[in-house]
Amino acid sequence: MATTAAEKPSGFTIARLLNALLVFVPVAMLMEWVLHSPPIWIFVVSCVAVIPLAGMMGHATEEIAERVGEGLGGLLNATFGNAAELIIAVAALRAGLFDLVKASITGSIIGNILLVFGLSAVVGGARFRTQRFNATAASLGSTLLVLSVVGLLVPAVFHFLVGDTAAAQERTLSLEISIVLMATYVASLFFTLRTHRHLYMGDAGETAPGGAHPPAPVKRAVAMLVLATIGVALMAEFLVGAAEATAATLGWNEVFVGVIVVAIIGNAAEHSTAILMAAKNKMDAAINIAVGSSIQIALFVAPLLVFLSYWIAPAPMDLIFTPMEVLAVSACAGIMAFCANDGETHWMEGIQLLAVYVILGIAFYFLPASAVVGH
Amino acid sequence: MATTAAEKPSGFTIARLLNALLVFVPVAMLMEWVLHSPPIWIFVVSCVAVIPLAGMMGHATEEIAERVGEGLGGLLNATFGNAAELIIAVAALRAGLFDLVKASITGSIIGNILLVFGLSAVVGGARFRTQRFNATAASLGSTLLVLSVVGLLVPAVFHFLVGDTAAAQERTLSLEISIVLMATYVASLFFTLRTHRHLYMGDAGETAPGGAHPPAPVKRAVAMLVLATIGVALMAEFLVGAAEATAATLGWNEVFVGVIVVAIIGNAAEHSTAILMAAKNKMDAAINIAVGSSIQIALFVAPLLVFLSYWIAPAPMDLIFTPMEVLAVSACAGIMAFCANDGETHWMEGIQLLAVYVILGIAFYFLPASAVVGH
Amino acid sequence: MATTAAEKPSGFTIARLLNALLVFVPVAMLMEWVLHSPPIWIFVVSCVAVIPLAGMMGHATEEIAERVGEGLGGLLNATFGNAAELIIAVAALRAGLFDLVKASITGSIIGNILLVFGLSAVVGGARFRTQRFNATAASLGSTLLVLSVVGLLVPAVFHFLVGDTAAAQERTLSLEISIVLMATYVASLFFTLRTHRHLYMGDAGETAPGGAHPPAPVKRAVAMLVLATIGVALMAEFLVGAAEATAATLGWNEVFVGVIVVAIIGNAAEHSTAILMAAKNKMDAAINIAVGSSIQIALFVAPLLVFLSYWIAPAPMDLIFTPMEVLAVSACAGIMAFCANDGETHWMEGIQLLAVYVILGIAFYFLPASAVVGH
Repeated sequence: MATTAAEKPSGFTIARLLNALLVFVPVAMLMEWVLHSPPIWIFVVSCVAVIPLAGMMGHATEEIAERVGEGLGGLLNATFGNAAELIIAVAALRAGLFDLVKASITGSIIGNILLVFGLSAVVGGARFRTQRFNATAASLGSTLLVLSVVGLLVPAVFHFLVGDTAAAQERTLSLEISIVLMATYVASLFFTLRTHRHLYMGDAGETAPGGAHPPAPVKRAVAMLVLATIGVALMAEFLVGAAEATAATLGWNEVFVGVIVVAIIGNAAEHSTAILMAAKNKMDAAINIAVGSSIQIALFVAPLLVFLSYWIAPAPMDLIFTPMEVLAVSACAGIMAFCANDGETHWMEGIQLLAVYVILGIAFYFLPASAVVGH
Repeated sequence: MATTAAEKPSGFTIARLLNALLVFVPVAMLMEWVLHSPPIWIFVVSCVAVIPLAGMMGHATEEIAERVGEGLGGLLNATFGNAAELIIAVAALRAGLFDLVKASITGSIIGNILLVFGLSAVVGGARFRTQRFNATAASLGSTLLVLSVVGLLVPAVFHFLVGDTAAAQERTLSLEISIVLMATYVASLFFTLRTHRHLYMGDAGETAPGGAHPPAPVKRAVAMLVLATIGVALMAEFLVGAAEATAATLGWNEVFVGVIVVAIIGNAAEHSTAILMAAKNKMDAAINIAVGSSIQIALFVAPLLVFLSYWIAPAPMDLIFTPMEVLAVSACAGIMAFCANDGETHWMEGIQLLAVYVILGIAFYFLPASAVVGH
Repeated sequence: MATTAAEKPSGFTIARLLNALLVFVPVAMLMEWVLHSPPIWIFVVSCVAVIPLAGMMGHATEEIAERVGEGLGGLLNATFGNAAELIIAVAALRAGLFDLVKASITGSIIGNILLVFGLSAVVGGARFRTQRFNATAASLGSTLLVLSVVGLLVPAVFHFLVGDTAAAQERTLSLEISIVLMATYVASLFFTLRTHRHLYMGDAGETAPGGAHPPAPVKRAVAMLVLATIGVALMAEFLVGAAEATAATLGWNEVFVGVIVVAIIGNAAEHSTAILMAAKNKMDAAINIAVGSSIQIALFVAPLLVFLSYWIAPAPMDLIFTPMEVLAVSACAGIMAFCANDGETHWMEGIQLLAVYVILGIAFYFLPASAVVGH
């Protein structure tokens, strides 16, 4: 790691800062198991502890991904950034907190696009007047996002039309739509990793700058990945266990906690990676991380959670999102599609994405709990 | 025809297969007039019988269209592919089955885009890594589609706001919007056939490969067209007469029958033509057939049916589509606009269109009849 | 002005015609203060009187803007075209006619895009087969428009979910969203006037054709601007005072008056300027006027009116638009985004925009007052 740090000082500083946060992992354990602290403190501390752990997962993945080209590396990064999220969602699923699960799905989708890519475009745009990326790859990503939106819209409109009388049908509908989404995801992997891999190879040549760089120690990276995963799983248990009480204490609704707080925590790894890439003018990597991560949440994590709910949750989970969540994801997909289309970004595009994020955040904050829950 | 067949063997095989299905035409007559078979059998047999007849209409048109260039030929093909649909819709209109009429309009629009163009992109994409088409023409098409969506959204939102108290106003609103849509259609014909004809000439040179090819016997084609039209009209009567009883027997709702079943039957001709074109890497023709056909349904067939309802239906028909139909058409227009924009397709774009089709099909299948009917 | 007139005869004729309409300014004063005429006459006459005054404001601005390049000039033109609108909205705000204020905001946004740019594309397209413009600048504009739509959608969906029980929260939500919109507007000015100014310089060279043209008398232009502003403010008072009674007399609802009538009056200046530019094949200027004006209404005028309502209105105004208004603005932003994307227009694109305008106009006309008002 020392060699890497010497090469990218800013990445190094961030890594150091993140590592310092690891102290919160034992603190959280102490507060939960020994001190039985108030839920709000356990929530805050375990939230903070997730950040370096998710960062470790991301860093380990980055080392593994280093040799496979920028585009594919971005995809891999997104995958393990979402591992933290999947673990948190599974913990909430086991506790039967379906609204929190769905809210964290919504929050991840919009957070990755609006916050992560928005900040990337601003940070990158502050240094470069115009940043270009592969419009074909980005367009495929945003079309997949629109497809996801249709997959989430249909059950919501169905629920709106049918009312509370058809819960069994809604579960079947959700299950079948989940299968379609998952199948599309598998097809998209085949596309990105096989038949059209060249679109995602990006600026691979720049990433691995010559033979002077020794191959990263893959074994060590895998060990780090395993350890970090266990840590995230533990923190996720604490975090989810304390979420409801925390929301009640602060007067926040559960959806706001899921959409904004949990999603930001879970995506901290992508944040730092994507922004670093943007600052180096590697917008292909930044956009792959942001859009790829959102797509993976929508087409892989969401259906996977529906499947898992039949095994590990108190009851099967459906895919019915609340109207405000559907609006958020739709707005996000629409605005991303327009941004991705022309193959270039400026700082102003980033500002726009952030503005939409803030507007949606305000709306989720003010929504009373009764109106938030769809059913 | 023998010469043509020798040139395109795959087209020939499909034509043969379709011709074999013509045997169901007399079978349907027998079942309806002599045997008085159960409605479900009459429905199935007359559905199957429509396919070769619609194919004949398409084939006859193709021969006539052969000399006018790929783009214009595609437009002509789409016109007569929709003739079958128009005939079925008129039969349903006369029977006062307005929900079935509207469902078949919805189904044609989404079927042409999602199913026909989706399959075309997959079949073409299996042979060619990237397929290109004229983005200007395709963009115009998808913008017209968005316009159609606005035309269908406005009455639905109006109905949602006003409730059941303003049926007379809604009919006037629908009539006036129909006039606007029809006028736009006429303007678009003037654009495609007159002022910007060059955009639609496509790969005309490739279609007519040299002077060795003798001019097609136009008279014979016209006779075939007339005969096939009469056949379709007859089958449409049988099909519509049996639709309600069939839906009841199978536990399907009327809208599912219209959106999925009737629309697939009516578009069988476009299916085979568009897919053949895509397999030959003539994506301009394939996209013209799919998008052109959808536009014609939305801007020409739908308003025409509203006008006709004042003459041949038990009561005037309005343009109020159900929320799920509006969602389906909106999703379809949105996703098409993004696909059309960059002027190229891959097989994955086709998979995405098909996935959206399947998701919508599942939703229409599960919707209970009471929720399907808008009013 | 004589020199200018000699150079652009058509502009000169329109200016003369507009100047003749100035006679309605004293007529309106006479009717309001001396004759106490029926409201409908005062409304009509003061509407007509606004047109030349708004034209004067536009003309004065044009002279000031002449040296700063086409793109920036278009922005300045749009600013003072909206000054007329802002003045009318302020008059309605002081009278507490919030529905009229919001309707005129909606009407300005859709009027500028659909009517002004639609007519520009038709008029320009009648002379030039294909007209090109800077797609980057236009895309930024349409993305900002999509952002505005999200800003307007969120309070409407919030209101739909929460009902009438949370008026205080809705006002806070509206105020905070207004702040975000205004901040985004300031950022966009920084983008267009500072960091990415070159994108908006357009065909500046053509606008100022050589040194033979003497610098315009700026003092005179400023004086004209001040006078015209006072005139518009006066006419706005008359117009707003008579609006309700006029709507009642004609059987129109207040929203139709705001969306269609007031918006057309207030935008008359942009109309003539944008269409003149389009006729000269300066589509960059035309699109800047139309899109820039819509954006300014949504991101600057609308939040400004919310802020002002805390000072000058009987009660604070929220940002909750009616569902039909939200649909109108969404449709408008969506269709504009697709049109702007490819960097070229044809007359048919103009026809489509006009068709959407007519469809929306029909819907607003038929909506009964009870359904129009959102709360």
